[in-house]
Parts: sequence; structure tokens; C-alpha cells
Amino acid sequence: MNTFGRILRLGSFGESHGEALGGMIDGFPAGVPIDMELLRSDLRNRRPGQVSGSGRQESDQIEILSGVYQGKSLGTPIGFIIRNQDAHSADYAELEHLFRPGHADDTYHHKYGLRDARGGGRASARETAVRVAGGAFAKMLLRTQNVQVHAYTQSIGNIALPDSAEVNLPVDSALVSRCPHEATDSAMRKLLEETRRKKDSVGGVVACVATGVPIGWGEPVYDKLSARLAYAMMGINAARGFEIGCGFEASRMNGSRHNDTWLANGKTQEDLCGGVRGGISTGEPLYFRVAFKPVPSIAQPQDLLGEDGQLHRMEISGRHDVCCVPRAVSVVEAMTALCLADFMLLARSSRI
Amino acid sequence: MNTFGRILRLGSFGESHGEALGGMIDGFPAGVPIDMELLRSDLRNRRPGQVSGSGRQESDQIEILSGVYQGKSLGTPIGFIIRNQDAHSADYAELEHLFRPGHADDTYHHKYGLRDARGGGRASARETAVRVAGGAFAKMLLRTQNVQVHAYTQSIGNIALPDSAEVNLPVDSALVSRCPHEATDSAMRKLLEETRRKKDSVGGVVACVATGVPIGWGEPVYDKLSARLAYAMMGINAARGFEIGCGFEASRMNGSRHNDTWLANGKTQEDLCGGVRGGISTGEPLYFRVAFKPVPSIAQPQDLLGEDGQLHRMEISGRHDVCCVPRAVSVVEAMTALCLADFMLLARSSRI
Amino acid sequence: MNTFGRILRLGSFGESHGEALGGMIDGFPAGVPIDMELLRSDLRNRRPGQVSGSGRQESDQIEILSGVYQGKSLGTPIGFIIRNQDAHSADYAELEHLFRPGHADDTYHHKYGLRDARGGGRASARETAVRVAGGAFAKMLLRTQNVQVHAYTQSIGNIALPDSAEVNLPVDSALVSRCPHEATDSAMRKLLEETRRKKDSVGGVVACVATGVPIGWGEPVYDKLSARLAYAMMGINAARGFEIGCGFEASRMNGSRHNDTWLANGKTQEDLCGGVRGGISTGEPLYFRVAFKPVPSIAQPQDLLGEDGQLHRMEISGRHDVCCVPRAVSVVEAMTALCLADFMLLARSSRI
Amino acid sequence: MNTFGRILRLGSFGESHGEALGGMIDGFPAGVPIDMELLRSDLRNRRPGQVSGSGRQESDQIEILSGVYQGKSLGTPIGFIIRNQDAHSADYAELEHLFRPGHADDTYHHKYGLRDARGGGRASARETAVRVAGGAFAKMLLRTQNVQVHAYTQSIGNIALPDSAEVNLPVDSALVSRCPHEATDSAMRKLLEETRRKKDSVGGVVACVATGVPIGWGEPVYDKLSARLAYAMMGINAARGFEIGCGFEASRMNGSRHNDTWLANGKTQEDLCGGVRGGISTGEPLYFRVAFKPVPSIAQPQDLLGEDGQLHRMEISGRHDVCCVPRAVSVVEAMTALCLADFMLLARSSRI
Repeated sequence: MNTFGRILRLGSFGESHGEALGGMIDGFPAGVPIDMELLRSDLRNRRPGQVSGSGRQESDQIEILSGVYQGKSLGTPIGFIIRNQDAHSADYAELEHLFRPGHADDTYHHKYGLRDARGGGRASARETAVRVAGGAFAKMLLRTQNVQVHAYTQSIGNIALPDSAEVNLPVDSALVSRCPHEATDSAMRKLLEETRRKKDSVGGVVACVATGVPIGWGEPVYDKLSARLAYAMMGINAARGFEIGCGFEASRMNGSRHNDTWLANGKTQEDLCGGVRGGISTGEPLYFRVAFKPVPSIAQPQDLLGEDGQLHRMEISGRHDVCCVPRAVSVVEAMTALCLADFMLLARSSRI
Repeated sequence: MNTFGRILRLGSFGESHGEALGGMIDGFPAGVPIDMELLRSDLRNRRPGQVSGSGRQESDQIEILSGVYQGKSLGTPIGFIIRNQDAHSADYAELEHLFRPGHADDTYHHKYGLRDARGGGRASARETAVRVAGGAFAKMLLRTQNVQVHAYTQSIGNIALPDSAEVNLPVDSALVSRCPHEATDSAMRKLLEETRRKKDSVGGVVACVATGVPIGWGEPVYDKLSARLAYAMMGINAARGFEIGCGFEASRMNGSRHNDTWLANGKTQEDLCGGVRGGISTGEPLYFRVAFKPVPSIAQPQDLLGEDGQLHRMEISGRHDVCCVPRAVSVVEAMTALCLADFMLLARSSRI
Repeated sequence: MNTFGRILRLGSFGESHGEALGGMIDGFPAGVPIDMELLRSDLRNRRPGQVSGSGRQESDQIEILSGVYQGKSLGTPIGFIIRNQDAHSADYAELEHLFRPGHADDTYHHKYGLRDARGGGRASARETAVRVAGGAFAKMLLRTQNVQVHAYTQSIGNIALPDSAEVNLPVDSALVSRCPHEATDSAMRKLLEETRRKKDSVGGVVACVATGVPIGWGEPVYDKLSARLAYAMMGINAARGFEIGCGFEASRMNGSRHNDTWLANGKTQEDLCGGVRGGISTGEPLYFRVAFKPVPSIAQPQDLLGEDGQLHRMEISGRHDVCCVPRAVSVVEAMTALCLADFMLLARSSRI
Repeated sequence: MNTFGRILRLGSFGESHGEALGGMIDGFPAGVPIDMELLRSDLRNRRPGQVSGSGRQESDQIEILSGVYQGKSLGTPIGFIIRNQDAHSADYAELEHLFRPGHADDTYHHKYGLRDARGGGRASARETAVRVAGGAFAKMLLRTQNVQVHAYTQSIGNIALPDSAEVNLPVDSALVSRCPHEATDSAMRKLLEETRRKKDSVGGVVACVATGVPIGWGEPVYDKLSARLAYAMMGINAARGFEIGCGFEASRMNGSRHNDTWLANGKTQEDLCGGVRGGISTGEPLYFRVAFKPVPSIAQPQDLLGEDGQLHRMEISGRHDVCCVPRAVSVVEAMTALCLADFMLLARSSRI
């Protein structure tokens, strides 16, 4: 269950403070040019930032172990590892028998009967480095069909990108919040600093757009493109909601409004469906949003639940993000790319 | 891709106006008492209603062909069919080369190169009868562990169940909207009638609660319980959004608020996470919501896109729901039950 | 686990004396011309014969319920059922608490805790009608690439097709044993009659040849073409052995002999590898053999094991084949076709 | 397609002369004691031997990267790598555009359009180190149920273990051929030396026995225990045949003979079915055999086929086994253990 995809599959392993994270990408077609710079830059974008980030310093050097030869994919599995170097496991010693609020400590403990408490173990968002690496390979494959995936920060707390803002993608990496609008980025930055000062954290929303997807990707009924995207997004740490096209707003609309008007060129006037009709891509841009809850690690005094059934009041140390959203932008892109690349290959079998 | 689940799997076949719909349930454990009354009552709840429904009269008689013997499951696949009896295919003759707005006509056409246009073919919500049948079997399995799943109408258009309303589940089947609050049901009913008069349609939101789920169901990382639920829900016709626990609202919250307080009994004060932490069930009630767009079939004059690339203005006849939400309640329940029963079986392999 | 295949998948349900057998074929590409005559003729070839057969008279009328429209596949699942009509369940009443020797009665009983003893339930070879139906569809797909699959009887008991015999395929359906050599067929026929007279049964070997398979089908490592064929064949009732190319004989050969000599056209002198090298098709004919044990149902007095732990001596009535091999020929063909068609679709993703 | 198993899954990556081999084991239950000595000893048994082996000196140091904590499995994926250290890629420079006889060079080339020719790339039996590592973990899991798996050499060329020989398992590791009979081992050893002198290679047969498997493992119809074993075995490099119980000999037997006699204790007199009836384990010992072809790498002058369509006569250098059978013993054990452990977990869902 640590594998994502049907034909193009990313398998992932690794705990936050274990030896290494790693993955294998299976079903990746032969002959795709491998762009190491894209891979490195995507991993860089996921790393902790100055303002929102956790302070953990991981260089995230990736080592490709197989599947690539003379700059191209071989068609065999691409294995890779990323070593953990800056783990401060001592920070977690006192948490070994305690369950933090809002974390998966208790659920892991009860599911498995034991757990690696160091750095959150397998539940840590550190695993998303594997997704970003896998996503970079998926992007290389999608590029051969001119499909582009770009995510960005839509809102943090109550500060949202104005509807009127013109969005230029990809987001300029100088924008700390990953919100493609300078004024909003400044406001978000201020909010993040203030939140850190209050030893608190805050949630937000990531938006994503994919262009160049041809008509016909996605499998109707249970494996709709929208359903697989929702699955991919809700599998990201801290995700709490997903909506495509008009999303929840569609629930308040009439059919006469939501039924977008056909243009003679086969496009619609407003692409209100977000590029998916009946679970299949329409050829228009895909767009959707993902809601993230606030990071549960905060430095205020809180009650922890002990395995002993007692409450233990304490301040949790450790290095944590104030908000996961700026880093989640890379992860949303990666999972979207993996999802689309899988459908790209599946679509090759739709017709004789 | 017409199969849902990993260990417990529902396969589905059938077009809206073909001979029959049907399915097979594989991986269903032996020895489960089969409750034919539950099966029939769930199918009945999905059938078109008086107010919101399509007018198509299908008795939805299900024929169980295998896998059940002397009132119990055999452990072998449960095959079943539901014949299509009241199909008015003539209604669709003129649509054979036209793409309706908001429908999957064009995406199917381009994906497959041909399609069965009668009644929407495979894209029709008629397929959800198979889901409801499969879900009824899943409920029989969940019952052996005292897990209950109940969905209900949260909102239709702008009319929503008040936060203060006390919700008694299951919903009284006399409430046409499936909203468990008489005053809101009346208002929704009125809205549905008015919308039908205007030859329009309207969207809405279904909420779902599952109780009795023990701690430990769900597989972390890609196959989180929340991710699989999102996948299951977004695979339902017309679904456009999913949120669990506080959902999109969580994106506007601080960690100090969302980090729910532990009670000494290992529960939390408010279950803000909706019963899932780190992708694994917490032992507290699961709750989530699904947004549905308005039904695209409306009786107003609209432009249809022809295969010939021309726009054709016409009023589409046929029998259609004004709002899919009251019927979607059964489908949300069914897909939730299938999802949970699958995790129930998977959880048997978590530990030695 | 009642589904065969990865992209092209056949799901199967049904007990021997239940209402019906049935199946669904998922992942079948759109636009394939459907040849109902091929389907019916394959089902006819699997039906009990005059000499070797069981005497059960089933017309095996298949009803296609979905996935086919105007003579072509829709790309949606093809659902079908075959009703059981000539079940004599009374024959099995006395066997309800007894385990026959050589049958799966005890293993089903202990695995599931209950079983449908009528006609062998799910363990009956009656299920192979579903495979033959699925295989016929796979053949229609393979035909679009000029791939042909032909199986035939290689041996029954100690009577084998001479190495020197010229084999013309498909086997003339007048040859009762399905051995494509008149003199051998006569000898086999005599053996079958004699075996029936002795109230005994006998085993045999089916050979299969596939031509037209291009180079490049099969996935190396765990999903070798040879491995998937072995899996497909050993999943047939009563199969006990599989070998490809020189098979077990290869274990006694030297490399200098088995390393077949290249011809300048890229073929080999003798195709000793049976058309598969490194798990991938070579473009030369595939050939392999499947060993079947004697049918365990014989009319001699035997000891049956009771659920009560006692031995019960009795003669088992019922209608049974003297040898499964002539009918297994169709099943071997069908499973081969399903296996190849799946690889045909998978091969579409090998390269960019 | 580089993943083996349904619930317990081994994924594998790595080329013969790439950076490293590696794998991930997913679905491994939490709480299993990890026996590093078993793991290392199984890897040691697979390494090239003195007589039959290839001369390549790989220490096969395995590095466990995740999934194990304080001596037990965590329930999270177990990732591991084995570095390639003694690769002599220069040996293969001249083979880059040539296809060796009996190898997968041409099939890889045509399937993928490019290949890593160094050491056979992904087609090399070096990948079996990953299987042996995965199999060792599976054995740790099976041990918790007292299931034991032991393979041994049955024959090499025309020298076979006599039927009368008493077999003590596991095979004494001092026996170079891995045949558990001193006199036969001596004869095999002589044959291997002689074959090496002739610059030739030779095939053989590996037998395998599993004890302690309870009644009820295996899924009927397509996923029979015998079918999955065949799939697992035929996926091993150079495998050409599989038979279980009486195997091909069963095809020449009568039902009155093969129908083994029940004993009052529910066992059979001779276990002729090899421990599987109807695809489900019977509770008696499992036994089966796997035929391996002679290694295609021989040092005699041979014609190679060029990408240029010309034949090129040459002697191939490189370090190769004279016979793969002694080393395949470990691989057969490993794949059997993986197959059984998967069914052990699946069996947990057979009944309510």
C-alpha cells in the first residue's frame, strides 16, 4: 500500500530518522530523456524555507541506482535513495511513550503494536521527498506530450489570492509563500512570522493547474481522473479537502449556470468543470484545490496522552514548519504528475 | 478499472439502456449472514423519488447468481444482475451525433472512438445501482463488527441543515430530501419543486458518518483512509468536492485550535479530524462531506455541440433528476461501506 | 482473486449448480469487431464430447449483457452470463458431509468453514466455460494483430502424438481426442472407451502453439511471458505441470546444444526456447505443454472421508469425464489468448 | 511488473553492472523478529560457488534502510540495497551491438529500443540477490507459523538423485551441488568440472519441499497455490518447466491410482497431489520441481547476431556459471517463501 499508480507506479520506503528514504519507479517507459536538473530543482523547492520551514537541514542528495543509462530511461525500474543526515532523534526520546495531539502517534501505535517515534517515523512529511523525486520523473514523461503541471499557494489562514489576480506560472521561487502575487505573498509572509512568534501554526490551500492534457485521459466509473486526483491529493500529509472545477461552489449552483456553454471549437466558455467531464479529461486546463490543516507540531504547552492513559502537560521541542503549504506546493505538483502520467499510459489501451 | 477495492472488490458492468447492469463481489469472506431485506431496501432508497427523481420506473430487481448458499456467503464471488426494463432509447436517437453541455458525451466519444449514446450509456448514474448492491453486502460484513454507515443530505442549493440541528440517523425515508430535519426538508422540497418548474437543476452536499470503526483501519502514506474515501466519493457521478473533519475550514484554522484536546479516555474533545489521523482511523466517528454539481440534464433550450463541429440549439427531452443529492445519499453510504470493509480485511495483516 | 490479468482482466463467478456462471471482461479496448460465431464455436468445443465427456447436457447459451454495441466493443466492461440448466443436484445430497478422494472437498471445507457441495461448487471445471468465453474475446483482440493460438492433445495416458507426425492446426473437430493425427486419435479413442469400461479415468498432456506474436511481449523479471503462461495454465483445473520450449528436457542438455544457432534473418535454427527468451517473446512461435492429472471422479468403490472423521466406502454416482484433456484443449487456448492479449496491451507502454 | 505478491509484495530494481540492486518489501506485518543471520546466510548460499560459479566476487553486503526498528519489523516498507562492487563492464564493451545466442539481448533491444548490455543488465541473474533477501524476510514471517521451506538439487544433466535416497534437509552447505546425497553430489561435481573443461554448460532440476503449511492456503480458480508457485518459479532466470506432486507423470496415470487413499486422520497415503488439491493447501507437505536450462554463456566460439543483421563469430569472455542449479536452490526457496507468506496473509480474509 506504499505504492502509487497502476501502470506507472512509485513505491516508497523510509522513516524520518531511519537510514534513508527511497523509492522505485516501475513501468516507466524506455527512452525518456532524464533531466537531472529538473529532479534536483524540484527537490530543492520542497526543502524547508526560511520563513515557514522546520529548520531541519537536509541536502536531499538523491542517488539514482538503476533504470537510467546514458541519459535515458531503460524501461527497467528506477531505484533511488535519499539519505537522512540531519536527524535529531534525541529530541524525540521523551515522546517514545506519549501521543502528541493532532499527530498519528496513537493510531500507528494501535495499528502496529510498535512504532518508530523518532521524527514521526513513517508518518513524517519527510516521506514527501520520495514523492517529489517520483513526480520529477513523471514530469519528464509528460513533457514528451507537452503536458505541464503547476501548483501554487491559494491561501494561508484567512489570506487568499484575490480572484482578480493574474497568475503567472511557475511561481517565482523568490516568493516565500509560493503565492504568485507579490502583495499577497507579503501578507502571507507576515502572517507566517507572526504565527511563529505565537508558537502556533496555520493551514492553507494549494491550487494546481495542468495544461496540455489531451481529451480522453481518465477511466470512467471508479477510476475517474477526478477520483484518482482526489486520492493522490488526500494521500498527502495534512490534506483535509479536495475540490475540482467549481468544487463545493458547484453544490450551490443551478444546472443552467454550471452547464458551461459550448464554443464552436469544442471548448467551453469558462471550463467550469475544471477539465474533467464524466471522469475523463476534456482537453481544457485541469484545475483543482487542496486544503491543508495547520501543522500539529506547535511549541505551546499542550497535554500529551501517555500509553499509560495519563495526560502529560509539556512543551514539545523539535524543528517544525509553521505552515506546510509552501512546501506542499511541490508535493501537489508531484502527485499530480504521477497521476497524469499513469493515465497517459493507460489511455494507450482505450482503443484498438 | 471498473473494479473498486483491493481485497474486497466490486466489479461493475452495464450501460444505461443495455440488457442489464451487473457486478461481482470478490474477496467477500465466507460465513457472513446475507440479509436480502437490507439489500432490497438499499436499492429502493436509491430509486427515483417523487419530487427530485427522473420518472424512469425501474423496479431494480436484483438477481443473485452465485456466492450465496443457505443464507450465508460461500467465500466465492457473489455475481448479480439487475435488468434494465424501462429504457426509452428512442429519446436519445437525435442525440447520437451531438454532445450535450455538462455531459460526458464528447469525452467518451473522443476516448473510445464510439459510444452508446442511449441514456448516457456507461456514464449514466444508473450504474450506481451496482454500487448500492455492492455496498449492501459490505454493510453485512461491517455489521459483524458493529460498524454503521449513515449518509444524509447536508444542503441543496443554498438551503443547508442548520449547525444547531440534532441529527437522528438513519434518515427517515419519508423525508423526501433525505435531510434529517423536518423544517429543512420542507424548504428543500419547495426548492426542488420550484427548480423543476423552471426546467432547471440544482446541486448539493451529502454528509456521511460512520460509527464503530475501531482504531487502526487505513494504510498510511498513499492509501490513507481519508485518501481512499476521497477516491471512492469522487468516483460517484457528479461529485466535485470532498472534505473530511473540518475540511476546507481547517485551512483557515491555527494549530492550537485544530489540535483537539485529548481526554483521559484516549478520545478527543471534538473529533475535529473526522476520525482519521495520519490516514488511520482513530476509533472516533468518521465524518466527511461530498459536494455534487447540478445535474446537467435540463429541459431548457441549450446549444449542443455536433460531431460535425456545429452548434445545434434544442430542448433535450428524457426523464431526469432535478437534483441528484437525495439519491446520492445511498450511493455515498454504499461506497463508504465498500471502502471500510476493504480496510477491515486489510487490517488483519497489520501485525503478526 | 477470481480475476485474471492486469490490463485486460477477466473476472469470473458462479458455482456448478448455482443459478448461473458469469464474467466481466474489463480493459477491453474499444472498436474491436465482435465475432459471435467464434464465441459460440469455442464454447461448443469445450462442451462434453461423446466419448470422454460427462454426459451433462448444457447448451452453454451465453448472454452478453454489456460492453458491445452495433457489433463492436465499447471499451466498457463486457458482462455475460451462462445459465446452469442441467444440474442434477440430487446426485450430491449424500456427499454433503463427505470428502471424495482427489477432490477439493476437504480443502474448501476447511478454508471457508462451509461449501456448496453440489456438483463440486466453485471447484467444478464448469467454471472453465467462463474462461473460454473470455478467451474468445481475447482472440478477437489478438486477431487484429494476426496472432493465432491453437492447442491440441499431445498425449492421453501412455499414447502420445509421434514426434514425426505432421501437425495441422486448428484440430479437426471430428477428432474426438483433439489429437491432430488420425491414427493416434483412434488409439486414444480406444483407450478412453476402455478406461470408461473399467470405471476409471486417465490423464494427459495438452500442447499449445501461438503464432504471429511479435518480438517484445512479456515483462522481464517476475512477469515473464513464460511465468504468466505457467500461472495461467496451472490455474486450470487438474493441471499438474507446465513446460515451455524444451522444458524438462532442457535440464538434461548442454548449453552448446540448447543455445540454438542464429540465422542471419534474426530467427534461430530450431526455436528451442519456445518463443521466449528472458521472459520476452522472440517473434518466433510460442509453444508449451500442460500436464493434466486423471479426473478424480471414478465410479469404482472408494473410501470417502467424512466430516465425522470416519471412512465411508461407496461408489460415487454423477456424470463425469473419463479424461479432461480433449475439453481442456479449449481452456488452454482461452487462457493463452487472455495472457497474450494482456501483454499486447502492456507492450504499448514499453517505450515513449 | 517488477513486483511480486498481492498483500506481501517484493519490489525489485537494479542492473547487473549498475550502482546497486535493491528492493522494497511492502505489506510485511509489524512485530516480526528480524533474523539478520538468516538473511546473511541465505545471501551467502546464493553466491557463486567454487565449482559451478561464475568467479565474480560480490560480497553481497545488504544494507537495510527502513522498516526495521529495535530488532522487529515496523509494518512499514522494508527498503534495502546491495551494491555492485566487482562488475567488469569492460568485458561487455564489444557486445554492445551484438546479440548472444540463448540470451535476452535481442528481446530487450527490440522491446525497449535501448538496453544496458553490461553484464546482461536487468536480465542478469544477479537480480536474484534481491529475491533471496526478500525470501529471507518471508521465511521470518513463515517461521511464526512453523512453516519451513527447503529446496535442493534433484538433477544436473543426466545425473539425478536416486529415488531410494534418503533426503535430509536443509542441504549440508558443504555439498557443492546442493544435492543432499554424498555419492550423487560427487558425481555431479565431476560432471560440472568436466563441463567447465569443455567450455560448456549444463542444465538441471531443483526440487522443493515446504512443511507445516496448514490446510486452507491458496485461492481457488485463477490464483491456485499451484498456479502462483508455477508463476513464481517460472519467473526465475533460466526456468523452463514446473511440476507439482506427480507432475507430468500424473498425465500417464489412472484416476484409481492417482486418487490417493484417505487415512482416517485426514491425510492421504502418499500425498501424490504434492500438498495442493483444488488450488488449496491440504496440510500435507508441498513438493514440486523446477527445470532449468543450461546457462547460455559458454566460452566456445559461437555466432553472435549483430544489430547490423550480420553474424559475428567469436568467443565470449566474462565470468559465468557452468550450471545455475546449485545457486538456483536459494532462489527457489526464496520465491516459495514469498509466495507462501503472501497466501498466509490472504488466508486471514477467507472467513468472517
